[in-house]
Amino acid sequence: MARRKVTSIDVAREAGVSQSAVSRAFTPGASVAAETKERVHKAAISLGYRPNAIARSLITRRSHMIGMAVSYLDNHFYPELVQGISDQCQKRGYHVLLFTAGEGDAANTELQRALDYQIDGLVLASVSLSSEIANRCHAAGIPVVMVNRVSDAPTASKITGSNELGGRTIAHFLVEGGHKRIAYLAGIEETSTNRDRERGFMAGLAEKNVTLHARAVGNYDADQAAKGAVAMMQTPAPPDAIFCANDHMAIAVMDALRHDLGMRVPDDVSIVGFDNVGPAQWPTYSITSFSQPVDAMIEATSETLFEAIEAAVEGEAFEAESIELPGALIVRGSSKNPPGCGDTWALSEEA
Amino acid sequence: MARRKVTSIDVAREAGVSQSAVSRAFTPGASVAAETKERVHKAAISLGYRPNAIARSLITRRSHMIGMAVSYLDNHFYPELVQGISDQCQKRGYHVLLFTAGEGDAANTELQRALDYQIDGLVLASVSLSSEIANRCHAAGIPVVMVNRVSDAPTASKITGSNELGGRTIAHFLVEGGHKRIAYLAGIEETSTNRDRERGFMAGLAEKNVTLHARAVGNYDADQAAKGAVAMMQTPAPPDAIFCANDHMAIAVMDALRHDLGMRVPDDVSIVGFDNVGPAQWPTYSITSFSQPVDAMIEATSETLFEAIEAAVEGEAFEAESIELPGALIVRGSSKNPPGCGDTWALSEEA
Repeated sequence: MARRKVTSIDVAREAGVSQSAVSRAFTPGASVAAETKERVHKAAISLGYRPNAIARSLITRRSHMIGMAVSYLDNHFYPELVQGISDQCQKRGYHVLLFTAGEGDAANTELQRALDYQIDGLVLASVSLSSEIANRCHAAGIPVVMVNRVSDAPTASKITGSNELGGRTIAHFLVEGGHKRIAYLAGIEETSTNRDRERGFMAGLAEKNVTLHARAVGNYDADQAAKGAVAMMQTPAPPDAIFCANDHMAIAVMDALRHDLGMRVPDDVSIVGFDNVGPAQWPTYSITSFSQPVDAMIEATSETLFEAIEAAVEGEAFEAESIELPGALIVRGSSKNPPGCGDTWALSEEA
Repeated sequence: MARRKVTSIDVAREAGVSQSAVSRAFTPGASVAAETKERVHKAAISLGYRPNAIARSLITRRSHMIGMAVSYLDNHFYPELVQGISDQCQKRGYHVLLFTAGEGDAANTELQRALDYQIDGLVLASVSLSSEIANRCHAAGIPVVMVNRVSDAPTASKITGSNELGGRTIAHFLVEGGHKRIAYLAGIEETSTNRDRERGFMAGLAEKNVTLHARAVGNYDADQAAKGAVAMMQTPAPPDAIFCANDHMAIAVMDALRHDLGMRVPDDVSIVGFDNVGPAQWPTYSITSFSQPVDAMIEATSETLFEAIEAAVEGEAFEAESIELPGALIVRGSSKNPPGCGDTWALSEEA
């Protein structure tokens, strides 16, 4: 059913103003009474009038604000992500409205507040959200992109690194490096990053017919990670390798083992991390780590977000996307490595 | 000249609505037409009517957004500051609208944009602003608080650590620790932090009749800092102590000296930093550093900001404040220390 294109004449009639007033109402900086402008915009919306890009953005009343929730900034990974996404938003004339919150309920309370602002989109970095809030966003036409976390909210897009493959790769790498007592230091157990990394790691060990020797929980916290690793090392049969679920914990573990227990890495124990953050690359640590492609994640996040915002403006449907970006195991000095290993290491095709 | 208190009857008359409509217009959630509400609020503003706190916030149309500009997040000091200030804002029902920008002109362009949003206040962390923008904020009734930077904008409040005293203390500390060839590694030279730290450092050396042995510029950047320090160490008479203008540079310098030059800290050269960030406290670095009291700075920033916002709402004048918060020289293992030195070190009363 083709409809006649709505013109400014229709809008002028509907709003009870002159055609020139409609034109001025859609010209930024033009002289027009606020009340007239308001009436014109209402009429335009009700008729579906679309004069041009600028006018569209006026009609849709975009706030040019992107809500962004982050759980904690002490892990180096997140400041990088926040700055990168903020820079991408600014390039497009948008700015980030920040919500700092822990994991779980507190985060959901803050996200409720985010919706009180007229945000055009919502980015969750390291924060999960309840299905209820995801649904509220969806109903309000606010696209949601989760970075480095997934949840079962079907309406939210998800951008992640290759957590499961990374865990599996590290398992093969440690077994082929000759380790016999392999341990896992978990992050926050209910997070998707920990779940996926651990699942991949356990699957990789099983593929090699190796059982996990020890496990502790570091909750992605430096102090808890150090304590957990020290406790594992003080057992009668300490691990000869520990996969720490992120670099933030791996750094704390290396410091504690070296300085509190006088141990050598990797001579006494190999340490492998995840994320490949800046400090993991510092020569003092030189941590073997599965990389998260931060720049690619930032780009995928902004593209997914702004495509969805454009679709929302056009009144078109937008399918939530799930994008997994490839990482690689960067081999450095904190681990005993498989024979013939280069700067990076990948599962062989048959594995 | 006492004025009769403006009542809701006056507002109703001015707006041409019933008194009950005025009441409903100021009751959140009450049923009232948007146009009526608008007319009542305009009348209330023009008469200076102040029904109560909630109504005041409606009248003044606070956006409950605080603009916050940060220059770069890779130095650990800033993520801590951003998170702390965001948490403080959230406690008061406000949220941070983030502006990421480098130093200088780019920052000023972003700050121009900040004013296009209806922010209630502006926090600049490690960003200076031009007098022109400061004046625009002042004219618009938007309080500005600068954290860890000062500029000559008289209308902006300034919250800093004790940069000059810190530099002076470090000079005395190094001389009394027996160092003979003392060097300075500068940050970005046009920043107030570098200027004040260096000024204090030079004054302290002069008080001890010591001349600066060498100087390089690291621009608060890890790579440039490492290069500058390595170059100073490769001269015929290398320094026996380097004061790095912040810890972010001191860490990079320690890594480069140890791993690229095979030097020992402090045996071959003492390293002192500034800020006392998390990684400076890691046992691998254990950097002697003059502390910036981050928590106190966060608190002073939010108090100054929200007092000024309240004043703006009440139509009262608010004097810009300059608050210098005390730090202390935290003595760790990266420096040869004066005899009898404890965990901290301060200038003696006579100094």
